[in-house]
Amino acid sequence: MLELYYVPAGSASCRVRFLLTEKNLPYQAKVVNIREGEQNSEAYLRLNPNGLVPTLVHDGQPVWESAVICEYLDDAFPQPSLKPADPYQRSLMRNWVKYFDEQCQPALIVFNWSIRVSPYASRWTDEELQDRLARIPTAARREAWLRAARSPYTEEERANALKTLVGVIGRMEVALAQHDWLAGKAISLADIAAAPFVWRLRAIAADEFSRPDLTALNGWWERIAARPGFKVAFDQEFTAHKN
Amino acid sequence: MLELYYVPAGSASCRVRFLLTEKNLPYQAKVVNIREGEQNSEAYLRLNPNGLVPTLVHDGQPVWESAVICEYLDDAFPQPSLKPADPYQRSLMRNWVKYFDEQCQPALIVFNWSIRVSPYASRWTDEELQDRLARIPTAARREAWLRAARSPYTEEERANALKTLVGVIGRMEVALAQHDWLAGKAISLADIAAAPFVWRLRAIAADEFSRPDLTALNGWWERIAARPGFKVAFDQEFTAHKN
Repeated sequence: MLELYYVPAGSASCRVRFLLTEKNLPYQAKVVNIREGEQNSEAYLRLNPNGLVPTLVHDGQPVWESAVICEYLDDAFPQPSLKPADPYQRSLMRNWVKYFDEQCQPALIVFNWSIRVSPYASRWTDEELQDRLARIPTAARREAWLRAARSPYTEEERANALKTLVGVIGRMEVALAQHDWLAGKAISLADIAAAPFVWRLRAIAADEFSRPDLTALNGWWERIAARPGFKVAFDQEFTAHKN
Repeated sequence: MLELYYVPAGSASCRVRFLLTEKNLPYQAKVVNIREGEQNSEAYLRLNPNGLVPTLVHDGQPVWESAVICEYLDDAFPQPSLKPADPYQRSLMRNWVKYFDEQCQPALIVFNWSIRVSPYASRWTDEELQDRLARIPTAARREAWLRAARSPYTEEERANALKTLVGVIGRMEVALAQHDWLAGKAISLADIAAAPFVWRLRAIAADEFSRPDLTALNGWWERIAARPGFKVAFDQEFTAHKN
């Protein structure tokens, strides 16, 4: 049995739900309440010591980190495969996933948390904030919550984050001009990792997408938006993420 | 033909050299001069758009990011395999690698760069610094170089980084008390990723390693230090990394 602990709005959660649908895998859905700090509860930390969402539980065994969950699902349920057979294309796929996780995701936090998290986190008392921070296991997330609650990112920080996010567009256009999908001729985990960022970017930076030279990226968007996994992963209005 | 661009002292470079030896793969060694900024030269950025070291070039095709390079080598040259056959153990392996890359590596930069990088970077003129920063493609590395050159990490930041690094010890002891290697009964990419951090930690936090309860970790250290790859990867005195 597969169980997925996720947040409907989370880019990492969207990625895993997209993949589960593409692989025709049914799962029990467990929504985690981030605002209430459920991801840092003792019960959740026993499943996932980093206190991050999503977590997949397969026959009682927890798997965490969306990039690792996706590789796991492809290893454990190989058909249909979402990895290129060629080792070099596979390395391209993994570099795309790393790029989204390590460069784009932190930028999305800077850009988005002042809109989504600060409105409630800023109302916590000092005691409540300290209590919550003390239960966050990673330094990066402690910093993100502290910033959201007490010192929202500056305009300059937000501008730099947006620059990183908009950088996705140019990088993807170059790759997609060469082949239909990010890591070659077939859809792979790289495209599924890209989808949540492009989905958001199309709202955050709508002007950028009206550039007439983005034919490859816009073609890719049409292809990916037609996938069955897309409809499940992005079953909400994007505006839901703005407040 | 395999070519490896690396720095002898770099933890990511040590990881790849360790693996290449374990897999009996000969390669042409190309040392990158970090101090002179060779990693951000036009020629290097054509191989690796992130300007990070190492880069593997296999028959003219560049592969970058040490975690991706290691997976690539295991895909392209499957014997002997350094990945567990079981998908769940493989996910444990990948979580360890992510933990070292995303939590420990940034902490090592905070802890180590004021010793290794500040002495020369602080002497650059403002013009020279701006010129170098402008050529660094990732925000995280621009920040690290700027800090090293102009505002070395505070004692508090260094103490927090050391705390993260020392956290490796407890996490590894728990896992290794269950099985000989981090992801199961056989050595894997997780152990090879761990080696550079433990190697440094044994010097940075020598006291921690004299704790009598670290029998599993110390047993692991003896096993890994006996591997052929270890001798190649750590062919320098550790003290070389302190100045």
